[in-house]
Amino acid sequence: MNLGSEEDIHAFIDDEVRGYLDLVEEEILRHVGSGSELDAIASYLIRSGGKRIRPALLIVAFKAVGGDDVSRVVPISAAIEFIHTASLIHDDINDEAELRRGIPTTNRKFGHIKALVAGDYLFVKAFEIGGMYPPEVIQMIADACSDLAAGEVLQNDHRYHVHMGRDVYEEIIRRKTAALIRGSLKVGAWLGGGTEDEVNALVEFGDLIGTVFQITDDILDVRGEVGKTGKPRGSDIREGQITALAIRALQVLEGNDRDELMRILASHRQSEEEVARAIALIEASGSVDDAYAYAEDYAERCFAALHRLPESEYRDRLELAVETIMQRAY
Amino acid sequence: MNLGSEEDIHAFIDDEVRGYLDLVEEEILRHVGSGSELDAIASYLIRSGGKRIRPALLIVAFKAVGGDDVSRVVPISAAIEFIHTASLIHDDINDEAELRRGIPTTNRKFGHIKALVAGDYLFVKAFEIGGMYPPEVIQMIADACSDLAAGEVLQNDHRYHVHMGRDVYEEIIRRKTAALIRGSLKVGAWLGGGTEDEVNALVEFGDLIGTVFQITDDILDVRGEVGKTGKPRGSDIREGQITALAIRALQVLEGNDRDELMRILASHRQSEEEVARAIALIEASGSVDDAYAYAEDYAERCFAALHRLPESEYRDRLELAVETIMQRAY
Repeated sequence: MNLGSEEDIHAFIDDEVRGYLDLVEEEILRHVGSGSELDAIASYLIRSGGKRIRPALLIVAFKAVGGDDVSRVVPISAAIEFIHTASLIHDDINDEAELRRGIPTTNRKFGHIKALVAGDYLFVKAFEIGGMYPPEVIQMIADACSDLAAGEVLQNDHRYHVHMGRDVYEEIIRRKTAALIRGSLKVGAWLGGGTEDEVNALVEFGDLIGTVFQITDDILDVRGEVGKTGKPRGSDIREGQITALAIRALQVLEGNDRDELMRILASHRQSEEEVARAIALIEASGSVDDAYAYAEDYAERCFAALHRLPESEYRDRLELAVETIMQRAY
Repeated sequence: MNLGSEEDIHAFIDDEVRGYLDLVEEEILRHVGSGSELDAIASYLIRSGGKRIRPALLIVAFKAVGGDDVSRVVPISAAIEFIHTASLIHDDINDEAELRRGIPTTNRKFGHIKALVAGDYLFVKAFEIGGMYPPEVIQMIADACSDLAAGEVLQNDHRYHVHMGRDVYEEIIRRKTAALIRGSLKVGAWLGGGTEDEVNALVEFGDLIGTVFQITDDILDVRGEVGKTGKPRGSDIREGQITALAIRALQVLEGNDRDELMRILASHRQSEEEVARAIALIEASGSVDDAYAYAEDYAERCFAALHRLPESEYRDRLELAVETIMQRAY
């Protein structure tokens, strides 16, 4: 239930976008590249990789509405990456996670006290950069961060919550998974001088692509190959995350099957046999096919939103992002 | 080693200042007073009391340099209180603290996950408000927050660090204890239209009064009455905080006494007998009197800094703040 594995979403980052992202990397290091202990802790996860999806989306959105001088959005793109990193660092503290991107988490490497402080520091750095921009941009970033926080609380409240429906599922995505994506696209479109409808179209696109990503991520938790996804099947089940597939399965299954799935998903400590049984029940319910249809529907809505933008190679790149997300689930 | 007990510093908040703080309270509730779960968690500690020392200092500094319309600094005063609260909430998570202001900490009441998110959210709210102000103000707030984070790391690195000298002690104060006080005074003085020297004088004053506060707090850890300070004697020793008194005692004691004090202060788990013995050694070293002289010296420097401001009732209030801090240690 997290935008953890981003391997497949970044096909839209071609050489041109990669060139812009190099500028973002330089900007990042200008802010957290000193030799200080705090900078070292705060930049540890940033330096460990990450695809810079959000900065890339911001820049492509900027260009897609006719924005010209990319250097104008490079600092705020770095700020978005700081916020994303801060939220990952704090999530890892909350989950007592030990590994991210194949290396020890910040909390594991530096201890949770310093990790917490480093996350705070990255939020502050982000808003320090935000201060260079018009108040509207700060408001957009603050809104995204507030949504992120509210989404985290909402998601936390609904772990193991087997009576959760699609309405709450989509609300969690809108709040948490999509918040920074939406914020990135909005900032890029606004600074690029997009019309009100273009800005709105990209904001909608942010929610929609976030949903496509989450549904396909949910599919991979049942169908994925460990080598590709980087995590064992059933991780969502173990963490108490109620996926789109689980919601559907609980709707269509009946009798003992439904009772059993509900019992396993609600349990805070499942055996590996129970996790495997839950996956089997979800598969048997037909909810994988349903999830493909659900994702396809949202992908179509992504394309519709994008078609409110003028035709351009940048709009094509955003379409490509949706397509590659869909492909990874097949 | 924390600005926890603020009972005695607030004598300078008279009826006029109290009236301004009422406006700050209204502003606070405008931002975190909705019925949402996140607002409820984020405002829990704020609603539990707190003397609003930093907002009061900001407003008094604003008036002391000739600022006129207090409504202009009410929102940023609320922002400063948000940052202060966020740092307390995160500190309590880090310390696994159970009580603050006589009630369960946010982490204890809502769990550490939600407490962490609520702290993040308050940082965001603070910068959202900051976005209404000129970039210079955002930079001042960001600098204070960055110092706060660096100070927390520095302090953490020097717990149980018996070879710490006064240079590091004062650096930790400057970074952590004084950071937001200094930032509040700077923002108030700058928005009040103070001259460069007036702004600098109030920034210096912030560091100096922070130091006076910390030294007297250290004295109270050895000499204070539990009923007044709200915490048992020797708390700093138990937490591995190396106080001004400990630094001095380790300098002047010799032979076995010095070795014993060093051993106790460096120990991560002391018996109550050892804590009592450490207090006795510190008392016997004469470092309490030394600390009084140390604090008096800084109090004098506070007054000197204030005398670079024009005479006014607001300057008098800042003097009064120093005097009441000094008095509490006697």
